[in-house]
Amino acid sequence: MTDPTIDLNADLGEGFGRWQLTDDDALLSVVTSANVACGYHAGDPSTMRRVCELAAERGVRIGAQVSYRDLAGFGRRAMDVPPRELTDEIAYQIGALRVFARSAGSDVVYVKPHGALYNRCVHDEAQAAAVVEGIRLAADAPLPVLGLPGSRLHEAAGAAGLPVVREGFADRAYTAAGTLVPRSEPGAVVTDPGTIVKRSLAFARDKSVTSIDGRPVEVDIRSLCVHGDTPGAADIARRVRAELESAGVRVEPFV
Amino acid sequence: MTDPTIDLNADLGEGFGRWQLTDDDALLSVVTSANVACGYHAGDPSTMRRVCELAAERGVRIGAQVSYRDLAGFGRRAMDVPPRELTDEIAYQIGALRVFARSAGSDVVYVKPHGALYNRCVHDEAQAAAVVEGIRLAADAPLPVLGLPGSRLHEAAGAAGLPVVREGFADRAYTAAGTLVPRSEPGAVVTDPGTIVKRSLAFARDKSVTSIDGRPVEVDIRSLCVHGDTPGAADIARRVRAELESAGVRVEPFV
Amino acid sequence: MTDPTIDLNADLGEGFGRWQLTDDDALLSVVTSANVACGYHAGDPSTMRRVCELAAERGVRIGAQVSYRDLAGFGRRAMDVPPRELTDEIAYQIGALRVFARSAGSDVVYVKPHGALYNRCVHDEAQAAAVVEGIRLAADAPLPVLGLPGSRLHEAAGAAGLPVVREGFADRAYTAAGTLVPRSEPGAVVTDPGTIVKRSLAFARDKSVTSIDGRPVEVDIRSLCVHGDTPGAADIARRVRAELESAGVRVEPFV
Amino acid sequence: MTDPTIDLNADLGEGFGRWQLTDDDALLSVVTSANVACGYHAGDPSTMRRVCELAAERGVRIGAQVSYRDLAGFGRRAMDVPPRELTDEIAYQIGALRVFARSAGSDVVYVKPHGALYNRCVHDEAQAAAVVEGIRLAADAPLPVLGLPGSRLHEAAGAAGLPVVREGFADRAYTAAGTLVPRSEPGAVVTDPGTIVKRSLAFARDKSVTSIDGRPVEVDIRSLCVHGDTPGAADIARRVRAELESAGVRVEPFV
Repeated sequence: MTDPTIDLNADLGEGFGRWQLTDDDALLSVVTSANVACGYHAGDPSTMRRVCELAAERGVRIGAQVSYRDLAGFGRRAMDVPPRELTDEIAYQIGALRVFARSAGSDVVYVKPHGALYNRCVHDEAQAAAVVEGIRLAADAPLPVLGLPGSRLHEAAGAAGLPVVREGFADRAYTAAGTLVPRSEPGAVVTDPGTIVKRSLAFARDKSVTSIDGRPVEVDIRSLCVHGDTPGAADIARRVRAELESAGVRVEPFV
Repeated sequence: MTDPTIDLNADLGEGFGRWQLTDDDALLSVVTSANVACGYHAGDPSTMRRVCELAAERGVRIGAQVSYRDLAGFGRRAMDVPPRELTDEIAYQIGALRVFARSAGSDVVYVKPHGALYNRCVHDEAQAAAVVEGIRLAADAPLPVLGLPGSRLHEAAGAAGLPVVREGFADRAYTAAGTLVPRSEPGAVVTDPGTIVKRSLAFARDKSVTSIDGRPVEVDIRSLCVHGDTPGAADIARRVRAELESAGVRVEPFV
Repeated sequence: MTDPTIDLNADLGEGFGRWQLTDDDALLSVVTSANVACGYHAGDPSTMRRVCELAAERGVRIGAQVSYRDLAGFGRRAMDVPPRELTDEIAYQIGALRVFARSAGSDVVYVKPHGALYNRCVHDEAQAAAVVEGIRLAADAPLPVLGLPGSRLHEAAGAAGLPVVREGFADRAYTAAGTLVPRSEPGAVVTDPGTIVKRSLAFARDKSVTSIDGRPVEVDIRSLCVHGDTPGAADIARRVRAELESAGVRVEPFV
Repeated sequence: MTDPTIDLNADLGEGFGRWQLTDDDALLSVVTSANVACGYHAGDPSTMRRVCELAAERGVRIGAQVSYRDLAGFGRRAMDVPPRELTDEIAYQIGALRVFARSAGSDVVYVKPHGALYNRCVHDEAQAAAVVEGIRLAADAPLPVLGLPGSRLHEAAGAAGLPVVREGFADRAYTAAGTLVPRSEPGAVVTDPGTIVKRSLAFARDKSVTSIDGRPVEVDIRSLCVHGDTPGAADIARRVRAELESAGVRVEPFV
């Protein structure tokens, strides 16, 4: 029997111009996959380049964190973008990021939607298909799509022949059905570092998490998202990784 | 002795979202090189895609028309962008456009700065070098740089090992020294279609143009810019091309 | 019995920087109320100023045509903007426009949401309330709200003590229930100038319009929207106004 | 003889959407004048509103911190904006901010250009005049202009009948001629809190500052800028204010 294996991913490069947000340097010492903002919700060209260079140096995989075009709302406001337009916006972002990934000696090797687009693509078939079409437009090879198990995004990606990578969140509550508790409900976000670490381990080793009503739920994931935009984010991420490794979990990228 | 050869280039895809500007379809039936806006002064992803698809279909070469980040000013306001930032902004634009050029079965095969950046790079060594560095960052192969003969941009490109392509303007007045008369001076812009056609022919066949004070000036160019954002632009371009061809000039892309 | 009275309103100032869209000059000779774009879906400061100056000169009333923040989508993509944020964005736009209205010797005397926000506020109570709150925040006096009869926007405005002005569209099909046929359905948009003129007259004189299935529907409006962004828009508007006047309808602003 | 009097001003509200920069709450407990970002280099509507509400609550005067339109560059990149356009952009920003100042029960009572525009208006007559024209366009009453003594901005303001308020910087080095040492030169920025405090006191009490080459220079100012975007900024500002007050200086707004 092989050791359990998990990838750690984080949203990085989410500053813009004068504004900083994520502690990119610290997190790039912990995670194995970097979801790099591409300029639509965050991420100016110089930040994109710097994050790609650091990621490449440290062997961290680079993914395109694509978003709605909404700097003012940080990509957190769902938008009714017509599918064709959305497809082209996704392709644009991937192409722009690829320049910096390649010039750093690496490449864009996966895609993960950000914020409101991520949430919308859980249920919205048309937008999910549009995102997948944008990924296909932008890439010669089939790029893996990081997302929620059971999402329309994963269905559309699978149907289009793109690999899907199942993702979980150690700091989010899960329902008994194995879906995320909406942020608007009490208890939706887990903030205690110890609990986050414990849940990470459960995901990686037991393919399971305790639901919000206290029962174990089976959740089989290949990548665990650690958030990068909260105070202490890098410390928590380090603890998660250390705990995983000391428990014999292999922390490795999925691609 | 070989026939004289010239390329016709035009700025295309300069709409943005709801707004149209250039008659892309008509001009893509006339020119041999399309300077496609990349989203910084004009050009949304869907427009970029459509122009690339049409250009590819018709064998028109695709170039990245890179600009300052200034939609409100259409890239016509000079900006003191720090060189490193400028380099990264140029690379971002080329990468984004490349996705649409390649998905259309073609590629970005040259670069031309737009508007205020074009003008600034005639004289400003630091910005010219930053643009060239951005082109190098974005491309594996040395991409030709379309620009004004004698410009700092061409000097920097040459020094960096990038091919330079000398460009002329049939609808702009030239000084006796062979430089452009600034737009702010009277007579700087030629609007009479017949004169534009005649000057085009002089450029292509005689490597010469009549200066604003009436003397012939030697100007050796490989590409002639026909403007696309004026009423009747496509008609003038068609007349220029017809006249060139009937005079035995070969109208061919430079790459 | 008094003559029937109607206002003619049009969306104006919908260019942005280099891009023009609406024939502001021609339409300002026809309409009695100008819905001026405020910079969020269209409208740069210099365009806002010019439209306000022309409107003031000709006695055309100035209204703030407020929108989602979406230049790339021309405000036509519905967005889930949190109500508090939406309120503040609406107030911002009104305040900016007021400067130009007042410096021209006039003022912002009503508000009309644009595009996707207009449509959303027909049904969405939270966004409608947020828009109304933004109007209240921006204005000392209660500004009239131009909108669809029966919309949540009008309900919220009424509840907040703002006057409501009922609006109709001569170039849109109506259901038998007196609501607009969605643009996605066949026949939703009326393009024949003669029909538009005839329907305008029916609205103004008979408070009635023929529904898409051929029956007369009672629709009581005080303002008729004539579109400004289609070719021939100004001509149609002129014909509408001439026909109304020759039929004894008084074409007058509502405020 | 009256006590020496000085105003403390700080740049506030310089976040944008998800991104925070200035510690607005803390600084609004210290300063007497708040230069509030208006959305062109920083400052979204909700941030503008919150800062205005806090400022009004605490009796801090509200000024419009107007800028070039450049979120990506935080208004720090000089731009060749044509004067007429610049005038209208300035007026737009003031109008937008006024809505929030007034709804909070206060008003916009002065104007200060930001970043590259501030620096440009020290020497550039055309841009300085354009800014002053924008202020006049936006305001019924003559709004005071906060700026560098001897600047073209102050000349233009004076010529137009606007009050000028002379500003100094406790954390910037001065030449023997009483002008600022450019940021590009060594020693241009003073970072030691003790020195900043000492220099503040010299400005306020002695109308003097020690130049970079060690000599006392007479600099007569009415307002002292304390920076808000550096770590520890609020602490330094508090120390400056405490020291001024204990030395008998009256810390009071200029308007």
